[in-house]
Amino acid sequence: MKVVVESFTMDHTKVKAPFVRKCGQIKTPKGDVITKFDLRFTQPNVNAMPTGAIHALEHLMAGYLREEVEDIVDISPMGCRTGFYLIKIGEATEEEIAKGLINTLKKVINSQEIPALNPVQCGNYRDMSLFGGKEYAKEVLESLEKEYLKE
Amino acid sequence: MKVVVESFTMDHTKVKAPFVRKCGQIKTPKGDVITKFDLRFTQPNVNAMPTGAIHALEHLMAGYLREEVEDIVDISPMGCRTGFYLIKIGEATEEEIAKGLINTLKKVINSQEIPALNPVQCGNYRDMSLFGGKEYAKEVLESLEKEYLKE
Ligand SMILES: [Zn+2]
Ligand SMILES: [Zn+2]
Repeated sequence: MKVVVESFTMDHTKVKAPFVRKCGQIKTPKGDVITKFDLRFTQPNVNAMPTGAIHALEHLMAGYLREEVEDIVDISPMGCRTGFYLIKIGEATEEEIAKGLINTLKKVINSQEIPALNPVQCGNYRDMSLFGGKEYAKEVLESLEKEYLKE
Repeated sequence: MKVVVESFTMDHTKVKAPFVRKCGQIKTPKGDVITKFDLRFTQPNVNAMPTGAIHALEHLMAGYLREEVEDIVDISPMGCRTGFYLIKIGEATEEEIAKGLINTLKKVINSQEIPALNPVQCGNYRDMSLFGGKEYAKEVLESLEKEYLKE
């Protein structure tokens, strides 16, 4: 396995958010492929999601995105709070992931509550904004639909 | 591959941070194992790291932890800001990971700068605290050394 910190190789000044980008691939010893995607929600160094919004999206997307994309290993917020990394077993195109994300964001916008919003299941249940998560979901959804669902 | 959101199955009121916990395992189609560890820095629902501190630790640990633990797929901050998830290919014990984390935190404490701290390589280079990252590293290191390096 080759050790590369992939996220440090993209020029963050050259991208236009939101976007879905295949940002890394690893081969396991027995020959399976693990693929990593950058799900960028806000423009790097221009906007960042508040902690309550990105935390709410983490909880909501943990379930919804697994309903849309097969063999997910992990979905995690970026430390910079501009998006998420999605890690899955196997191959997928950016377009397939973007369509899965579009469906996920629609479910987020229609959510009435945040799953696992309690001190037993969450490490910081007070820092959570369903309103904030939905507002970012709406913005990202609108742009992704224009980009990936055009005829 | 079985779909389980592992982090929602631990009782966050029953743990005592800091700790290292094996929290999930996945088998790939060809039979490799992917293991996920919970690297918990602060006590759930009591303390959470400020964004600048956890972001600095994300950048610092991305390189240092890969020097200590083989075949890392990902290290990512938790949305609750109480710790990180480590995902690696293959097996490892909690003790092995804890010892790798101890060496990592020592390197963090001795760091004079944050890698990739610029708008080209980072999505939010202004939200970064080397001081904060080091202070949390010191606290976690002290407890982990007591727990895992006792004779
Ligand atoms: Zn949470
Ligand atoms: Zn960064």
